[in-house]
Amino acid sequence: MYQFEKRRSIRKYSDKPIDNKLLKQLLTSAEQTQTMGNLQLYSVIITRDKSKKAALAPAHFNQPMATEAPVVLTFCADYNRSTQWCMQRRATPGYDNFLSFLNAAIDTLLYCQTFCNMAEQQGLGLCFLGTTIYNPQQIIDTLKLPRLVMPIATITLGWPDEEGSVSDRLPINAIIHNEEYQAYSPEDINRHYTPKEQLPENKHFVEINNMQTLAQVYTDLRYKPDDCRAMSKVLLNTLRNQGFL
Amino acid sequence: MYQFEKRRSIRKYSDKPIDNKLLKQLLTSAEQTQTMGNLQLYSVIITRDKSKKAALAPAHFNQPMATEAPVVLTFCADYNRSTQWCMQRRATPGYDNFLSFLNAAIDTLLYCQTFCNMAEQQGLGLCFLGTTIYNPQQIIDTLKLPRLVMPIATITLGWPDEEGSVSDRLPINAIIHNEEYQAYSPEDINRHYTPKEQLPENKHFVEINNMQTLAQVYTDLRYKPDDCRAMSKVLLNTLRNQGFL
Repeated sequence: MYQFEKRRSIRKYSDKPIDNKLLKQLLTSAEQTQTMGNLQLYSVIITRDKSKKAALAPAHFNQPMATEAPVVLTFCADYNRSTQWCMQRRATPGYDNFLSFLNAAIDTLLYCQTFCNMAEQQGLGLCFLGTTIYNPQQIIDTLKLPRLVMPIATITLGWPDEEGSVSDRLPINAIIHNEEYQAYSPEDINRHYTPKEQLPENKHFVEINNMQTLAQVYTDLRYKPDDCRAMSKVLLNTLRNQGFL
Repeated sequence: MYQFEKRRSIRKYSDKPIDNKLLKQLLTSAEQTQTMGNLQLYSVIITRDKSKKAALAPAHFNQPMATEAPVVLTFCADYNRSTQWCMQRRATPGYDNFLSFLNAAIDTLLYCQTFCNMAEQQGLGLCFLGTTIYNPQQIIDTLKLPRLVMPIATITLGWPDEEGSVSDRLPINAIIHNEEYQAYSPEDINRHYTPKEQLPENKHFVEINNMQTLAQVYTDLRYKPDDCRAMSKVLLNTLRNQGFL
């Protein structure tokens, strides 16, 4: 039986292709995920073509799996299809707003994650590319996404050609709160984060990057506040261009 | 074996309580879901207390399961904990922006959905309350959510006391696009939506609501454009108040 506790991201894939029937079966089964008012506010673009993968790759900072995976899936929040439906049925839609974007993004991510869970249970390996919302315009242009469609998540998918490694996670008590949110005391933060900071790989990571703390690797290197602010502007502009603001 | 094709939402729960050990086990296992830079940008508030459920219920339009479920889980996008960590580790965080909100919301929803899939595989029943982002301020106040924490999803959870019914879904070809987004022709829309419109329960639904089409039930009754626009403003204001805009 598949053990989720041992789940890991897979970035290297074998040459074995992904059967189209299996892919469609998984995408179909995942449709039973809960969805707002049964509207299914999402679309999935399936990329198998090499030149299309190459065109998408810069948006994903040219991470190797973006071109090496046999299949790249771009999960999009989609209010275009429902809007078309309404317009053909004497109904007046009005979903060009932020609430509707977030509703569609929620639908999309829940669907995406059920797909991931099912694909991994079948032995497939995948990696989630968080870069999708960093450079959405490039993805929109390459995949020809119309108004009221916004890329939210990208999955590279294939049969594993590496073991991968299980990542450390925070203790569950760092995540859960009973009845009300409990403010974190300095002692709480130490208790929750010290085990992670003490891992040899994380200590090594801090050292080779000439940082003093693991947190600095995040703030000074991986997710710089200035970059986040700049990308926020781009993201809001893109939402505006796609009709959601 | 659990068949996802037969998945259904459960709104009625038996008196059997949910063992805290099982709940924690499921929430812990789900932590292996992919997460941005291993930051785990989420928190979960566990509500078992009756008076707390009653306080949350109006935010969920007093749907009965919000008070009748033994457990209500509110999944929150959380950049507060990481920010606290950075500040205690000589690192300068800067995640009070829209990109960071969306990153945290993505983390939260992927985690939430893995939890849902696992809980259902254990035989638990659940209902996803999309109302969470409609009245976020009430939830924030009740659960005492601090700055950089935003409620995204609510799950009512319990052992099923009803069969529930499997919902119809769009044919998979309505959802997937090969290589590029294919614009929907009027014929495509008819082909994709007619089976749903012809279902006896949907015909009945249109009739009892005195509508001409199923689409009108959505635009004129369930998700009125004016409501969506008003709630968009509230939602953006709430994001601003929580420090994400």
